[in-house]
Amino acid sequence: MHTTEQLQQILDKAIQNLRFPDQPKQLYDPITYIINLGGKRIRPLLVLMATELFGKDAHDSIHAAMAIEVFHNFTLVHDDIMDNAPLRRGKATVHEKWSTNTAILSGDVMMVEANKNLAMVNPIFLKDVLDTFNATAQGVCEGQQLDMEFEDRDDVSIEEYINMIRLKTAVLLGGALKLGAIIAGASEKDADLIYQFGVNIGIAFQLQDDILDVYADPEKFGKQVGGDIIANKKTFLLLKAFELADGETKESLDTWTSYKNFDIKEKVETVRSVYDILDIQNIAKESMNKYLNMALSVFAQINASEERKSNLLTLTNQLMAREY
Amino acid sequence: MHTTEQLQQILDKAIQNLRFPDQPKQLYDPITYIINLGGKRIRPLLVLMATELFGKDAHDSIHAAMAIEVFHNFTLVHDDIMDNAPLRRGKATVHEKWSTNTAILSGDVMMVEANKNLAMVNPIFLKDVLDTFNATAQGVCEGQQLDMEFEDRDDVSIEEYINMIRLKTAVLLGGALKLGAIIAGASEKDADLIYQFGVNIGIAFQLQDDILDVYADPEKFGKQVGGDIIANKKTFLLLKAFELADGETKESLDTWTSYKNFDIKEKVETVRSVYDILDIQNIAKESMNKYLNMALSVFAQINASEERKSNLLTLTNQLMAREY
Repeated sequence: MHTTEQLQQILDKAIQNLRFPDQPKQLYDPITYIINLGGKRIRPLLVLMATELFGKDAHDSIHAAMAIEVFHNFTLVHDDIMDNAPLRRGKATVHEKWSTNTAILSGDVMMVEANKNLAMVNPIFLKDVLDTFNATAQGVCEGQQLDMEFEDRDDVSIEEYINMIRLKTAVLLGGALKLGAIIAGASEKDADLIYQFGVNIGIAFQLQDDILDVYADPEKFGKQVGGDIIANKKTFLLLKAFELADGETKESLDTWTSYKNFDIKEKVETVRSVYDILDIQNIAKESMNKYLNMALSVFAQINASEERKSNLLTLTNQLMAREY
Repeated sequence: MHTTEQLQQILDKAIQNLRFPDQPKQLYDPITYIINLGGKRIRPLLVLMATELFGKDAHDSIHAAMAIEVFHNFTLVHDDIMDNAPLRRGKATVHEKWSTNTAILSGDVMMVEANKNLAMVNPIFLKDVLDTFNATAQGVCEGQQLDMEFEDRDDVSIEEYINMIRLKTAVLLGGALKLGAIIAGASEKDADLIYQFGVNIGIAFQLQDDILDVYADPEKFGKQVGGDIIANKKTFLLLKAFELADGETKESLDTWTSYKNFDIKEKVETVRSVYDILDIQNIAKESMNKYLNMALSVFAQINASEERKSNLLTLTNQLMAREY
């Protein structure tokens, strides 16, 4: 069994060893570019950790881990086109650096590359691996679609929002873990449990993101605090606030979310003060903890030794320990 | 062994039975829309025919045939965005009818649906099927990339052009046939031969398209004769004409391909007259026949009875018998 640091080294090496054709250059250069922008490589790490949780060596699932990482980067490239995003990890997005057409087509070929990596897994597990991967990929597309539709709707419920982040973000964590479990020969029950663990962790993690965006310490937060408020992004916090607001708080939310021109600092402070009146931060934390606890309760049911479980538990704690 | 008509009925039924989730509607409606725009269903037909060529029943490869058809339609949706095409088979393209974002994301989920169909093939053949499909999909993306790059280049050689149409159009025909062969348990040698047959037929077919676009009988041709000339499309004919032209013919080509405003009829007639002087139609036909003959010569080497070969030969003859 490897330490987390060792697993990260195995991943880094495998990512460096990913090889794409030289030509056409304009098709393959963006793939190398986006993959080398970095990121925490959480998803492929989950694949490897799940394999070791069930007693096999991480190298057995390295191709599945690469498939998940390449697929994830493919979704970033296409999402960035759809969201009209200029920057990704502080660098130009693919459609900005090259063109929208290049970003569409390089994204498409990344999907093929992900599938090529997937086809390299042990043939005994291939059918199960494909079914899990395809269901996951389909969920991610559905989540992105819902996210886009929510932008034009003003009647999104908290339930719909949770379903959207489950699809857009969480199923990929669950799917990554399940792939690792399948390749380790885990029982169907354990593979499903680890999937549920990942999905619940994913939802908790996204809710934490929503909270941090409003309440993070600006000096420790990697991006602008209040970005979601500025953009009227329909996060858990804004949706819950609209659900609970009435009288003055409702008026304030309606006013500030309708302004086309506004002072950024004033908007963030005013909306945050409405959140405070309505106790939104605590309500969001309660919901986050509900999903975290569901994840941990499911994890406890998994048939594996405490020693083997320790890596994933530590990672979970680290992920959930970002500061407010 | 089924007749071609019976195979088409099997295909039509399978296409009608393709089921996609109901929600999100905006994600899945475009898939049903584009698939039901019709088309000749040549590619999935090739999958089924190859399976029967090697002695198995077409139903064995129906999922692979659906994967190929859904994948093909995915490429149409994304290509239409990149080519800024308003119409497909006389109807609005997906990005026109919905939006570019919808066309990107519905296309992505079609790729997943294609892979889901692929995962349904007999697990014994799954690894080989995936490898063939992924190599084919990658080739198609590379072909589209080259096609786009050629628009901005004025030094494209005939050799480069043939390579581009091989990737963009022909490998999908070869790949479809190879999938059908693999699923029938054909030998590796026969699977490779049928692939080569398909690729050469595909190139011949595209060259025939290039010729028909200039020389078809307007009353029998489904679209505007001369469309490629009007758009300065770098077809075999235009590239060969530039290669051979000098003096007056070179001047005429240079002039007419540089005009921003021109009389359509006059441009088509003038460029066609240059082609006639340079004997381009016959040169293109010679090249087309070279690939057709290579295809037939490869086909003759395949280890299958003449009776079983008859369906594919008849289809080939029908495809290549479009009128000039």
